[in-house]
Amino acid sequence: MTANLVGERRTFVTHLECSLTGERYEADKLQGLSAAGRPLLVRYDLEAAGGALRREALEARPTDLWRWRELLPVRRTENIISLGEIETPLIPIPRSGGTNVLVKDEGRLPTGSFKARGLVMAVAMAKELGVKRIAMPTNGNAGAALAAYATRAGIETLVLCPSDTPEVNVREIAAQGARVYRVNGLIDECGAIVGIGAAEGLWFDFSTLKEPYRIEGKKTMGLELAAQLGWRLPKAIFYPTGGGTGLIGMWKAFDELEQLGWIGSERPKMFAVQASGCAPIVKAFEDGVEHAERWENAHTVAAGIRVPKAVGDFLILRAVRESGGAALAVEEDDIVRATADSAAMDGLLLCPEGGATLAAYRNALEAGLVSATDDVVLFNCATGLKYPLEDRSAVLDKNALPDLAEL
Amino acid sequence: MTANLVGERRTFVTHLECSLTGERYEADKLQGLSAAGRPLLVRYDLEAAGGALRREALEARPTDLWRWRELLPVRRTENIISLGEIETPLIPIPRSGGTNVLVKDEGRLPTGSFKARGLVMAVAMAKELGVKRIAMPTNGNAGAALAAYATRAGIETLVLCPSDTPEVNVREIAAQGARVYRVNGLIDECGAIVGIGAAEGLWFDFSTLKEPYRIEGKKTMGLELAAQLGWRLPKAIFYPTGGGTGLIGMWKAFDELEQLGWIGSERPKMFAVQASGCAPIVKAFEDGVEHAERWENAHTVAAGIRVPKAVGDFLILRAVRESGGAALAVEEDDIVRATADSAAMDGLLLCPEGGATLAAYRNALEAGLVSATDDVVLFNCATGLKYPLEDRSAVLDKNALPDLAEL
Ligand SMILES: Cc1ncc(COP(=O)(O)O)c(C=O)c1O
Ligand SMILES: Cc1ncc(COP(=O)(O)O)c(C=O)c1O
Repeated sequence: MTANLVGERRTFVTHLECSLTGERYEADKLQGLSAAGRPLLVRYDLEAAGGALRREALEARPTDLWRWRELLPVRRTENIISLGEIETPLIPIPRSGGTNVLVKDEGRLPTGSFKARGLVMAVAMAKELGVKRIAMPTNGNAGAALAAYATRAGIETLVLCPSDTPEVNVREIAAQGARVYRVNGLIDECGAIVGIGAAEGLWFDFSTLKEPYRIEGKKTMGLELAAQLGWRLPKAIFYPTGGGTGLIGMWKAFDELEQLGWIGSERPKMFAVQASGCAPIVKAFEDGVEHAERWENAHTVAAGIRVPKAVGDFLILRAVRESGGAALAVEEDDIVRATADSAAMDGLLLCPEGGATLAAYRNALEAGLVSATDDVVLFNCATGLKYPLEDRSAVLDKNALPDLAEL
Repeated sequence: MTANLVGERRTFVTHLECSLTGERYEADKLQGLSAAGRPLLVRYDLEAAGGALRREALEARPTDLWRWRELLPVRRTENIISLGEIETPLIPIPRSGGTNVLVKDEGRLPTGSFKARGLVMAVAMAKELGVKRIAMPTNGNAGAALAAYATRAGIETLVLCPSDTPEVNVREIAAQGARVYRVNGLIDECGAIVGIGAAEGLWFDFSTLKEPYRIEGKKTMGLELAAQLGWRLPKAIFYPTGGGTGLIGMWKAFDELEQLGWIGSERPKMFAVQASGCAPIVKAFEDGVEHAERWENAHTVAAGIRVPKAVGDFLILRAVRESGGAALAVEEDDIVRATADSAAMDGLLLCPEGGATLAAYRNALEAGLVSATDDVVLFNCATGLKYPLEDRSAVLDKNALPDLAEL
């Protein structure tokens, strides 16, 4: 356990704020969506935070997620939970991507995905605020992270997922102490059921952006990236977008870092990557509208981004547009090819969602949205080991060896 | 990429040495076993290294594996390959283990196992020494790491594994660019085939301890552990032992750290953990002999430690005995129970080999080999996600919802 987890350090949180109306809410109380039915954002006294924490002091701390305590909502050290939230590495993929392409490998986090960032924070806050029972819809990875942290915090958990969620996800959720239900519907339909139970007072609703703290955890992707790159941001970021928490969180992080004076006003172009079989944000982006319609008959191998309707749609679209980026849809074949190429050419096994960002980068390069000299970061949000791989082995009989020179 | 990977730093390697006879061998030449048929160990000028590198300078570097460059064999920076070899976290498991039990979670390394440590080093050295083609027997994880790094280094690779190797291993090896063969035999039988081809000059033999550099990579587990714990070692280490490279490597690391003056002469009790279905080292330990006989009809769910015959048997036994530890066999049921407990009680999914160390710890506690106040480190050598988990989900019909209060 690092000093970040056990030292007494204060948070500079001041209040929560409706992401649509700016209406103010109290921070130290259990909150869901705002009165306007929109996500709540956590606000900090960044001037005071910047006075208390110098960049050099931050740099001297261990690099795990909890090094950012002043910019995170947890008040009391005893409510911190942890399974080892390390800083994830940036890995070049020169052959399948290009000389200026780095993959941020989020599969190294607890439970094998970046969902650990959001859920460690949300569960720590649930513990701080006395929550006893949580329910959540998931495409798989979020449920796994919730299960692990809630077990650690001693909170009871129910997880609802589409019946065709990747097998290993369904199983790891149960192994890590949550009850898991397969539902004959997509993630928003699972979410509707969770909503009914929450209204009945059966549990607290942990759906994406329906509680204010997952985004604070996801924000650390942006904070960490800036620190890793020496307080310079890349020219472009490609992010596989379902509910969009990560993209919204990074955008918020950059804003807070600028207010701290740790980075300037330049921003990466943010590319929200979706699969052509489920691209509601891409459609809204192209139609020039602020909200996305539900995508019917959603399908893609990249289960994590199969989200027909995102409650934070307007926040994703706003960040993408302000950044000068775009929302891009990629074909299934291109996802599969990019994933295979990264493994076979650069030895880096991506998850399909990560493969989608590589496919989108390739398209963006061809379309001139980025140039080969731009430094670019692709997010591989989960370990590729969770997804089915092809069997391409051959058989060798020890009792009837062929000419080994032929192997 | 961290400064450790790109900075020009010298290695203090001087020569290689036969682990049995002490005979000296040249370092900058391709070497297999010694003339006596034993593993070669890499030796350094530790006095000079200690003069050039102060502990404080080491501490100021990024924490990844390449921070130890002075104590690693690679001479030329351009031969370094990397997929992000981060420092692995130490995670408490208070409920399933105890208050003083930490798990070193090696599943966070590239390709999801600690084999990355050994193979990144061995492949970098193969690159440095001009190797064009490698073959290796594997129980799964080592093959995956070899495939990824060899692909990255542009070296052709063949991997032979027992036909019942965990499915995901066989598939990830192929995805990462190696040719993979399933053999109707155990790992030593795969190794025999590799040996035949090596003798014919078809490839270089990368079997455990048959080339000198994997152990140097594995050594970083010991170096890293000491640095993480503030240059104190734990009272006991439980290590799942197949070929034993990790245990031998850590033992070597502690020795080098003492020669550097960075730690004292105290050592952890080293516990070599095996499964009762394949326990050659335990038998040799109990029989008081220096070499282990081949274990017939080896079987265990913990595939990584299903090694009937280890070429470094005498080195494992020597370390265990000198440390005042023991070689311990655990039952299959206890492995399964310990693995399930860690996930369900502490939210930490271990691999079966990691589960075996927890089971062994529990037994050792009961037998009085360690006490509950001793600080102990268990090695979880791979991500639990690679191994089959039980399906414990229930089904929920969105069109016929039950009373949600019953969930
Ligand atoms: C691997 C993976 N990538 C991307 C996403 C999408 O994340 P977000 O909800 O932040 O858009 C998910 C969410 O499940 C995921 O599991
Ligand atoms: C998960 C796991 N644990 C332990 C081992 C044994 O390692 P060693 O060869 O260092 O004894 C292996 C080797 O395959 C492994 O994959």
